[in-house]
Amino acid sequence: MARLVMKFGGTSVADIERIRIVAQHVKREVEAGHQVAVIVSAMAGTTNQLVEWTREASPLHDAREYDTVVSAGEQVTSGLLAIILQSMGVSARSWQGWQIPLRTDETHGSARIDDVEDSLLVARLDEGQVAVVAGFQGISDAGRITTFGRGGSDTTAVAIAAAIKADRCDIYTDVDGVYTSDPRIVSNATRLERVSYEEMLELASLGAKVLQTRSVEMAMKHDIPMMVRSSFDDPEALSAAFCGDNSVVGTLVCDEDEIVEKHVVSGITYSRDEAKITLLEVQDKPGVSAEIFGLLADANINVDMIVQNVSANGAHTDLTFTVPVSDFERANNVIKPLEESLSYRDLLGSTDVVKVSVIGVGMRSHAGVAAKMFKALADKNINIQAISTSEIKISVLIDSAYTELAVRTLHSVYELDKT
Amino acid sequence: MARLVMKFGGTSVADIERIRIVAQHVKREVEAGHQVAVIVSAMAGTTNQLVEWTREASPLHDAREYDTVVSAGEQVTSGLLAIILQSMGVSARSWQGWQIPLRTDETHGSARIDDVEDSLLVARLDEGQVAVVAGFQGISDAGRITTFGRGGSDTTAVAIAAAIKADRCDIYTDVDGVYTSDPRIVSNATRLERVSYEEMLELASLGAKVLQTRSVEMAMKHDIPMMVRSSFDDPEALSAAFCGDNSVVGTLVCDEDEIVEKHVVSGITYSRDEAKITLLEVQDKPGVSAEIFGLLADANINVDMIVQNVSANGAHTDLTFTVPVSDFERANNVIKPLEESLSYRDLLGSTDVVKVSVIGVGMRSHAGVAAKMFKALADKNINIQAISTSEIKISVLIDSAYTELAVRTLHSVYELDKT
Repeated sequence: MARLVMKFGGTSVADIERIRIVAQHVKREVEAGHQVAVIVSAMAGTTNQLVEWTREASPLHDAREYDTVVSAGEQVTSGLLAIILQSMGVSARSWQGWQIPLRTDETHGSARIDDVEDSLLVARLDEGQVAVVAGFQGISDAGRITTFGRGGSDTTAVAIAAAIKADRCDIYTDVDGVYTSDPRIVSNATRLERVSYEEMLELASLGAKVLQTRSVEMAMKHDIPMMVRSSFDDPEALSAAFCGDNSVVGTLVCDEDEIVEKHVVSGITYSRDEAKITLLEVQDKPGVSAEIFGLLADANINVDMIVQNVSANGAHTDLTFTVPVSDFERANNVIKPLEESLSYRDLLGSTDVVKVSVIGVGMRSHAGVAAKMFKALADKNINIQAISTSEIKISVLIDSAYTELAVRTLHSVYELDKT
Repeated sequence: MARLVMKFGGTSVADIERIRIVAQHVKREVEAGHQVAVIVSAMAGTTNQLVEWTREASPLHDAREYDTVVSAGEQVTSGLLAIILQSMGVSARSWQGWQIPLRTDETHGSARIDDVEDSLLVARLDEGQVAVVAGFQGISDAGRITTFGRGGSDTTAVAIAAAIKADRCDIYTDVDGVYTSDPRIVSNATRLERVSYEEMLELASLGAKVLQTRSVEMAMKHDIPMMVRSSFDDPEALSAAFCGDNSVVGTLVCDEDEIVEKHVVSGITYSRDEAKITLLEVQDKPGVSAEIFGLLADANINVDMIVQNVSANGAHTDLTFTVPVSDFERANNVIKPLEESLSYRDLLGSTDVVKVSVIGVGMRSHAGVAAKMFKALADKNINIQAISTSEIKISVLIDSAYTELAVRTLHSVYELDKT
């Protein structure tokens, strides 16, 4: 017997027939003797409709009322799934955030979980009742409904898993796991059997939109293994298997120590959400960078990569940095008024760039990973415009026209191709 | 300054534009200096969709989960109206049943209100904040969401009005009041300025579907005047008037003592939801009626009118009674097996009947109201098949073909026609 959290997103509960399939997945685990808490999102499209209504009501709206409106979607799904489980002979009841209660701070719209009261839930789980928990929502100390922002049901799932000390948190989605790269670009991409929390964080934030970053952070903190698996597989055909059982098709996100066969590189990702800004011949004197990036920070613009060339003449230098595409115009408007004070020669910008990243915990112990990357790209005549690195990641900025070529080349060079 | 409850039904909040008009009605009262609690239904169509989903999920579903699902509709409207009020500069917040809390028993789907905690609400009202209350729902002692059945938002409105000691409860609907008869049949029907709780109960249960019966009972018990008025009138054009102010267009439902000019008859109603069953030549002996109506009661069939002729020969009699059309077939199935024990000659049934009623508190002190009714119908050659009476009502069962003729004739005879 294990205690299991299962989370199903919007496409997995899009209509009654899909919810019925979710119920079959749940029933399979219950019949295998597991205690189950299920976390559900709103039916696909519902949240968009509710958000649209709040916008029509007023573009500037009280976040507390926004949360009241949008949380209704998960409430509906939780009740419907409980009904269907009961009709299949599975004991179940729905739980809203305020009923558990799942307490959060008062940051409506993107609340943080303070505390999950587990006693009521655990008592029911011990009685063999499935807990169907409305995802994405909690209750503030003021007694108002709070929500966690888009994708917040993943966060609910991990928080509940941590509170009830679940053995695993299964995230059911429309793909059967995390891949070494985007299968739409790399037909040879393979599913990762296991990936560490740290790698998953890089994979999640760099474009593989399978898991919400915050949920992975929380899972890492509480050491809750997460399994990414498909809700579109036949529920009957899947085995009610458990952590470590190789018959489960999916990707286990777990502690690095639990990964025996470590790959040097686990995945290649890319992000088109990058815009490049270059200041030519900026004055090379102390405080220049502080002024530029201070102003961008004040404008709440997130700067990612930064490259400053060595000053050729000791007086001027070129400065390149990237911002999200959505902030490109705003960033330009912040920089332009500095033309005089910084006396730069020209301001260049481009959105025709892509950030390609190589990710893997193995980098920590293997030298030459970066060199291999740069050589592989050079061999294909792909020019690197900027570089940034972390302990387990190397990212390069290149011309977006080379996206597919670069990703495929790196996928092959690091021996990730399906054999 | 008065304390006012305003209730808006589904068609009044059908979309964002309609909710904006509701907000204008509320703003008008706030600007007149009144403290306001607004009770809202789900947006028209929403509840039907939610109910349909629960049916698809399982025809036999847990009423607690049904309540969880369907209560989401009112939750959405309450948040949206609060947002729109705020955008108009009116301080407002939404309240779900569990937040007030509005406590009910555990009869999910048709719960009864036990207690409304008024302290939080009143504190906010005293601060000048509009309370936007999600109608139709409460919370049980077990902490589950309960609902009151269709039309339950009227009940919420009166319960809130009683709890906060409101001066009046305004029910905004798609008509501008209660009429002396159905305007679709009687073009001369006039709006009643005032009607007593007792009369309204008869009018409501007999077909004038303006107010939910339970809400009128509760208003009578707590002596909360109710005003039926239109949400489709121009909010700007209406005066923010108050009880007793004749400039308010609507019908005031209030204590009989507050009605100065009492009409003998206030209204003529009709109901097509009647089916007639006649047992010919039933044995005329003690216990026969008890057996028949006992079995019908056991089958949960509500018998309305009962007529038993005087026995001609002392041995046999004819027995006629009416049941709701929806129970007609079931009632026949209950009676048929009694053929032997009661040894009746024949079982006749018809759904081609209508019940026409004359209602008015004036009947208490005026003789001859019934006689006038029977004579008027006789003059038009309309045969009366059954009669039932109460202190303030006379109902007759007639051939449904004569519905319009009977209603118009009586409307004229009792001098209710527009002059």
